[in-house]
Amino acid sequence: MKIEALLAEDAALVDAALPDYLKTTDERTALLYEAMRYSATSGGKRIRPFLVLEFCRMFGGEEKAALPFACAIECVHASSLIHDDMPCMDNDALRRGRPTNHVVYGEDIALLAGDALITRGYELAARNPYLPPATVLAATAMLLREAGAEGMMGGQQIDLVCEKKKADFDTLLAMHAKKTGALIRASARLGCYAAGIVSDEDPRAAAASAYAEGIGLAFQIVDDILDAVGDEAVLGKKTHADDVLGKTTFLSFMSVEKARAYAEEITKKAVSALKVYEGHEILTEFAGYLLSRNK
Amino acid sequence: MKIEALLAEDAALVDAALPDYLKTTDERTALLYEAMRYSATSGGKRIRPFLVLEFCRMFGGEEKAALPFACAIECVHASSLIHDDMPCMDNDALRRGRPTNHVVYGEDIALLAGDALITRGYELAARNPYLPPATVLAATAMLLREAGAEGMMGGQQIDLVCEKKKADFDTLLAMHAKKTGALIRASARLGCYAAGIVSDEDPRAAAASAYAEGIGLAFQIVDDILDAVGDEAVLGKKTHADDVLGKTTFLSFMSVEKARAYAEEITKKAVSALKVYEGHEILTEFAGYLLSRNK
Repeated sequence: MKIEALLAEDAALVDAALPDYLKTTDERTALLYEAMRYSATSGGKRIRPFLVLEFCRMFGGEEKAALPFACAIECVHASSLIHDDMPCMDNDALRRGRPTNHVVYGEDIALLAGDALITRGYELAARNPYLPPATVLAATAMLLREAGAEGMMGGQQIDLVCEKKKADFDTLLAMHAKKTGALIRASARLGCYAAGIVSDEDPRAAAASAYAEGIGLAFQIVDDILDAVGDEAVLGKKTHADDVLGKTTFLSFMSVEKARAYAEEITKKAVSALKVYEGHEILTEFAGYLLSRNK
Repeated sequence: MKIEALLAEDAALVDAALPDYLKTTDERTALLYEAMRYSATSGGKRIRPFLVLEFCRMFGGEEKAALPFACAIECVHASSLIHDDMPCMDNDALRRGRPTNHVVYGEDIALLAGDALITRGYELAARNPYLPPATVLAATAMLLREAGAEGMMGGQQIDLVCEKKKADFDTLLAMHAKKTGALIRASARLGCYAAGIVSDEDPRAAAASAYAEGIGLAFQIVDDILDAVGDEAVLGKKTHADDVLGKTTFLSFMSVEKARAYAEEITKKAVSALKVYEGHEILTEFAGYLLSRNK
């Protein structure tokens, strides 16, 4: 409960800041901005912004320096959902209980809204006014790497290819590490940059990456378990979707019990990376929350 | 002829550099990179990279500092073409005489390739190693602004709305200023950044913007004229496409003769912005070349 309240608090910060970042003075482009806001301000748990804000706090940074990065990563994430939902990808008509972007605005505007939202996200990062230019530049370059073909988008491509033929276990791990893991790691790293930690070799940056990679992977395993044995009423979506699509999941390689134990072990290791740092309790609790969630 | 040789020389620099910027060590994402290279290295006049390189040279910068920016802007441009050609947008099967990206790789990979190519373009800009971080950051933030909803993508949205209802003259100007003008201006400005000119208020930056806005607009007017009275065999594409689509063009408001005179006047003004700078001849000649082209 306590962690859920903290999540909601951080989400509220982002929800309050985002609309101001997604508006224009040009009435002729009001439709595009409306479509961008529709997806970026549609709720969700705001896990990525939470990681940005909490890593920044744990490492002694200022909230105001983390907030532009938190909004940036949410724009990047929301953009990927718009494009993922399109008919040529997953063809989903519903997202978070609302019609998807292309259902409301048409595929042409949705395609553009995804492009514009990710670009705006990158720009928010690049225009963070609360940190030195060299720090902002390094953070932006990192975000671009993790979002692009070496990160999230590369993972999406692996996923598309896997839908057509069964994946082996290493490919499944590589796919998740990129598809969702890269942006979760980027979130933790953005929090570090906001706290002035620039170098990849700084042990705090390395610990943030190790933690984020662990909870990102555990998150996926739990997702697969919930799809197989979760409660549709609690989840708010159909279960057994992976089965219907013939998707390779962790349960293609192990039983539900083994998968649960695997997720627990990974989470334990992820959390241990932060133990030496004062104030790690919130992030430790968060990892447990992700593990034990039932939706 | 001389200007065409210079264009070809600069294009060769970009063509030589781009493949190295678009490769991965992860065999699992080779397909995505192949799709990115397919569109980014498919020729074209490379007008935008030319502007980056020539503005940098005119203002005394080093070619090596301009080249990453030149490749970056071409990636951004190529990405916009991939998405523009998709069935939900213009639904074009051919581009520069070759099948479009989605025809070769499928719509799902093409959508991702566009996303990944634009992200890689931004990243190339952000990782330019030949300039101080503050300069690189300012250049990257400018590029993100000009490519996004306030620039190119906003212009694309205006264009989509105009297809559904006739546009007035001011809207036509606003649409072109954003849809193609913003990236042409960004090219000229990137050349300035590469030469160490950072401030918007620097008279050289202002001159570069004025020049680029002028030639960008003249380019569009000439495009409209060629579509109406050009030679299909020389153009290598069907003429009267605007008529068929019921598009608002400059010829919706004036005769071919008046449009030609208008383009000449704008070009003259654009060129005059550079006159005070030594070495303006190449860019002056380039403006004339764009005006008198027959394809």
